[in-house]
Amino acid sequence: MYPITLDGSSVQEKREEIKKYFNNTFDLYEKVFELLKDESVFYKKSEPTRHPMIFYFGHTATFFINKLINMKIISKRVNAEFESIFAVGVDEMSWDDMNESNYKWPEVSEVREYRNQVRKLVCDLIMKVDLVLPIRDDSPMWILLMGIEHERIHIETSLVLHRQMPIEFIKDVPAFNLCSHWGKSIKNEMLEIGGDTITLGKDKKHTLYGWDNEYGIYNEEVKDFKVSKFLVSNGEFLKFVNDKGYENKEYWDEEGLKFLDESGAKFPHFWIKNEDTFEYRALSKIINLPLNWPVEVNALEAEAFCRYKTNKEKLEYKLPSEAEYTVLYNYSNLEDVPELHESRANINFYHYASSCPVNEFSFNGVYDVIGNVWQWSRTPMRGFKGFEVHEAYDDFSTPTFDDKHALILGSSWASTGNLIMKHSRYAFRKHFFQNAGFRYVISSNENESEDIYESDALVSQYCEFQYGDSHFGVENFAISCANVASKYAINRDKALDLGCATGRATYELAKTFDKVEGIDFSVRFVQVGSKLKDDAYVAFSSVQEGELIKNKKVTLKDLGYESLKDKVSFWQGDACNLRANFTSYDLIMATNLIDRLYNPRLFLDSVDERLNKDGILILTSPYTWQESSTKKEFWLGGYKDEEGNEVKTIDSLKSILNDKFELVHIQDLEFVIKETARKYQHTISEVSVWKKR
Amino acid sequence: MYPITLDGSSVQEKREEIKKYFNNTFDLYEKVFELLKDESVFYKKSEPTRHPMIFYFGHTATFFINKLINMKIISKRVNAEFESIFAVGVDEMSWDDMNESNYKWPEVSEVREYRNQVRKLVCDLIMKVDLVLPIRDDSPMWILLMGIEHERIHIETSLVLHRQMPIEFIKDVPAFNLCSHWGKSIKNEMLEIGGDTITLGKDKKHTLYGWDNEYGIYNEEVKDFKVSKFLVSNGEFLKFVNDKGYENKEYWDEEGLKFLDESGAKFPHFWIKNEDTFEYRALSKIINLPLNWPVEVNALEAEAFCRYKTNKEKLEYKLPSEAEYTVLYNYSNLEDVPELHESRANINFYHYASSCPVNEFSFNGVYDVIGNVWQWSRTPMRGFKGFEVHEAYDDFSTPTFDDKHALILGSSWASTGNLIMKHSRYAFRKHFFQNAGFRYVISSNENESEDIYESDALVSQYCEFQYGDSHFGVENFAISCANVASKYAINRDKALDLGCATGRATYELAKTFDKVEGIDFSVRFVQVGSKLKDDAYVAFSSVQEGELIKNKKVTLKDLGYESLKDKVSFWQGDACNLRANFTSYDLIMATNLIDRLYNPRLFLDSVDERLNKDGILILTSPYTWQESSTKKEFWLGGYKDEEGNEVKTIDSLKSILNDKFELVHIQDLEFVIKETARKYQHTISEVSVWKKR
Repeated sequence: MYPITLDGSSVQEKREEIKKYFNNTFDLYEKVFELLKDESVFYKKSEPTRHPMIFYFGHTATFFINKLINMKIISKRVNAEFESIFAVGVDEMSWDDMNESNYKWPEVSEVREYRNQVRKLVCDLIMKVDLVLPIRDDSPMWILLMGIEHERIHIETSLVLHRQMPIEFIKDVPAFNLCSHWGKSIKNEMLEIGGDTITLGKDKKHTLYGWDNEYGIYNEEVKDFKVSKFLVSNGEFLKFVNDKGYENKEYWDEEGLKFLDESGAKFPHFWIKNEDTFEYRALSKIINLPLNWPVEVNALEAEAFCRYKTNKEKLEYKLPSEAEYTVLYNYSNLEDVPELHESRANINFYHYASSCPVNEFSFNGVYDVIGNVWQWSRTPMRGFKGFEVHEAYDDFSTPTFDDKHALILGSSWASTGNLIMKHSRYAFRKHFFQNAGFRYVISSNENESEDIYESDALVSQYCEFQYGDSHFGVENFAISCANVASKYAINRDKALDLGCATGRATYELAKTFDKVEGIDFSVRFVQVGSKLKDDAYVAFSSVQEGELIKNKKVTLKDLGYESLKDKVSFWQGDACNLRANFTSYDLIMATNLIDRLYNPRLFLDSVDERLNKDGILILTSPYTWQESSTKKEFWLGGYKDEEGNEVKTIDSLKSILNDKFELVHIQDLEFVIKETARKYQHTISEVSVWKKR
Repeated sequence: MYPITLDGSSVQEKREEIKKYFNNTFDLYEKVFELLKDESVFYKKSEPTRHPMIFYFGHTATFFINKLINMKIISKRVNAEFESIFAVGVDEMSWDDMNESNYKWPEVSEVREYRNQVRKLVCDLIMKVDLVLPIRDDSPMWILLMGIEHERIHIETSLVLHRQMPIEFIKDVPAFNLCSHWGKSIKNEMLEIGGDTITLGKDKKHTLYGWDNEYGIYNEEVKDFKVSKFLVSNGEFLKFVNDKGYENKEYWDEEGLKFLDESGAKFPHFWIKNEDTFEYRALSKIINLPLNWPVEVNALEAEAFCRYKTNKEKLEYKLPSEAEYTVLYNYSNLEDVPELHESRANINFYHYASSCPVNEFSFNGVYDVIGNVWQWSRTPMRGFKGFEVHEAYDDFSTPTFDDKHALILGSSWASTGNLIMKHSRYAFRKHFFQNAGFRYVISSNENESEDIYESDALVSQYCEFQYGDSHFGVENFAISCANVASKYAINRDKALDLGCATGRATYELAKTFDKVEGIDFSVRFVQVGSKLKDDAYVAFSSVQEGELIKNKKVTLKDLGYESLKDKVSFWQGDACNLRANFTSYDLIMATNLIDRLYNPRLFLDSVDERLNKDGILILTSPYTWQESSTKKEFWLGGYKDEEGNEVKTIDSLKSILNDKFELVHIQDLEFVIKETARKYQHTISEVSVWKKR
């Protein structure tokens, strides 16, 4: 099935279309898991750094519920435990908790039943949420489309994980049919492509769903270049392998050498060495190496191949840039979905559930401009000008804006939905495997310059707040809070900085505690503290006037945190539905958190269970309740009750916590957040310190 | 023609519909002015407190342009002078400048030509502005509908003004046909209406255009009541007149007595005494008093009649409340537009361009529930819960939330468009004449309590800023600015406080200057300073926590301004298109204004012309440019120029003003705006003082 368009004339028909598309997605995803030979395989990992397959089976369903809760479209969870354990851990990010001892995975049948419940709930919502056409990114239906497209991504990536498992774990499923023809290697050749001034970026009014990174605008003048007619085939790549390409260090950069070292790779991952010949691991079958199919490699291997070919031919080969690829796309006269018929390329499972020969699908003389396998580019993932996160999924892209994620272009046989759209942009770490290969170019187009400054305005504002200058004589708030914590802490083994934002207080608490965990709902923020730990610095911009900014950088050394960094760790988590393993703390500090939670009682009602004996809870808040964060029915104060009496937050805190805690200290503490060089938020939070009874 | 609905399936058809509706409105409005006998009448006033008719002829066209400019939908004016002189002065508000010496009215033919230009521009826009269905209040098309519905209001009110002019100024126009039948008085009677719990207020998703005051929610439990079957007819009212009702003071309240005193009224305004009988002034004709047509009176006369009838029958008669009227509306099984066929009532000019007998249009046994003439209610105009101003017209309703404006219900023969919708809510001062009469009720339902506190959150925040407490040791900003002005002023006759907001600095400047004018773009703000002058106090609420507020009141006496009040005056005006008569100042102070103007250069380029010799210009601003106020192309700083150089506002100010001014002083000045008891905006504005060369 093709993705639905956002416009239309009948709301009712659009609902039906979306329901059909959702059910097709959910069905297809479940079919992917039929490939696993039996239920025991759900508890195996495809890679040691990954969660077992049961995680993925549950993950896409919990995604719907977590986003719907977060966006306040629904207020009741389906299964709070599932929705915490299946929530995070997809990527190899330092803040994804992959310690299996922290997880108790449920039975497959339980997850299957859960998926049925979610399916019903989503179908009901599709038929009844407010809907105006065209659907825009502030519509509740957008969140449902987000869930669907998220699942479509996992259809493709799960198939890669399956393929990385031992063949004996996988069974044949008729729906996933291997291409049955392969043959001799095909000689590649270079085609001239005329340059062009191109504009990337999708308009907010585009009629197809898009992820945040697709919107905005980027212009580039692309000079003439040459491109390989075909994707690099297994046959073409075999020469590199036979020429000891994997052994020759000069073809590999630092990251590539690290990959070689850690993986011990001597040839592509899906090849199987069989004495002098190679076999090839398809999804559920092992076949002879199909020499005329595209090679599947990671970006480091693709780059190594380019260096090898450059060295051999004395012509500089490289991977195409995103802009060059766009010129190629235009050259190919390709229509976008839904005009493009799915038979035109090896996409959408239409022809095969595998690669096919690189000379099967031509577009104006260039083959596989889309489809067959993804094509690595030399362009790191970045936001276009005007980039804005979508509030429901603010960490879809921003963690990949780190110059370590390379764009993959063009989609594959397993791509569906948004993945095959003209404007889609996906990126992976260079050592990751996907259904991805490459083509090469000869080009004089420059690579874009690096930009490692934090480009997210809100995160930058928080960096300035936590790591920047002080104003109006008000001391750094993170430090002041950590000082209060230090004063009132009784035992000093482990502390939790809940709602840690960019992590300053987490480090400050590590001056007092042996171990400090920083948790925030948003990876946009968590990644700052984490980067400070990993890269020993953070860089951000501080707004001066209008759009004028001042770039700033602070280092672990400047901050005096070099000796503290091993005591801190950063995690993504939802304070209203925290995983069970976040427990046994001597102190929990929640700074400016409670008035930003969708349901603060969920946090407060059970926080005592996560504290050790004599544990201390510190809350700081200016009690600025707002409906955009917390539905009024969940406010702890700032309203009148049914009798007309004023309800103040501090009184509600006392009544909620009184049974389990003793209030030992209360004080005001100011903080100042800089918006521009002349405009500041100046706030007086109330600090309350509670000792567990 | 009926008003268009906001939804639909075809964008193109909707544009065509709107264009037709717009042209119909513009045509009908121009037809109304055909009633004026010749062009000289355009320069006559219907009432001494009003602008001449030429103002109204131009006003509705300039409204389109001023709103389109303000909302940044267009950026070029059609005729800047017309768009300033025809902009304000519709209502009898203290800030409407009605001094005719300040206006030079153009020729009728010039205004006619201007209207043609506007018609073309609006038609073009209707066909090309971004349009998504349904149209919502943040759509540019909403602004065009606003212009249309604004003109439809003036169709009705202009006809009332015409009717108030001497008959010899008016000629017959065939389109406006008088009802040709009238007869003897009809005995009224009371009908029982069952109580009900009713909800007022329109949903934001309603399919018809609405003014800000229609949205929100209000619940009331209405007890059983009795209502007059007919509107009060001229015949029924004649008894009151014959019984010396206008002479008997006990039937009149304070406001009513003031009306009697000022008007000398002895009988309804449209009656003409002819020895012992009465004649009746219709739109363009004088006829015998039509005894079975509804009497047209103002609210004060209607209330006096009720007191008279109460006194006579020893049963308490009063005007219906808005809630009671809604019960009556529901009782009548009335459909809303567009289902309601226009033949069902005396509305929309369908039957007549006049009243008609009160027993002609029955709705489930009650007559004229809608149509014929409006019906005064006893309910003062207020916003419902959830009331929000529309940013394009933030003073449509708020100046009427003063407990002095009474709602009129049910529409008249001259009502079209929004005026005949179920949810529409219009209110007038009680001494105003409209196509309005009344019916009476016997009811035990209470009147709503008075609420004279400023209910507009943003205005309240500004009241707190200008009249409230100081915080963080930062002095009152309005006073500090006036002190700077006092220090640098050379001559001290007349000062202008431009962007005066709630007016505090206007009063403070009056300590130094003989005369001070305060001007703000928004009447929401202007009315505060004005109220302080007229009523000797202002009342506002200050947010403490969430929705909890603290009510505050300051008086002229507390402020020590009793002796200053006659030196200040407040006016509505647009700093980028100020009327020519705002001139000859010794000092112009623009506090926190320039970065909120849609085009600050328009102000700065000519401000010197409004200053006397040795005049002083004071600008204060934190230079917080934002696209919601000022399109980026009009920013004075906070961006990089084409060469990549940083452009700062202060440098642009120097280059713009340097030819005409000498910069004599520059300093920082802090201010603090309270959002809640714990959250503040703390800002450092830059004050620059410029002396005219």
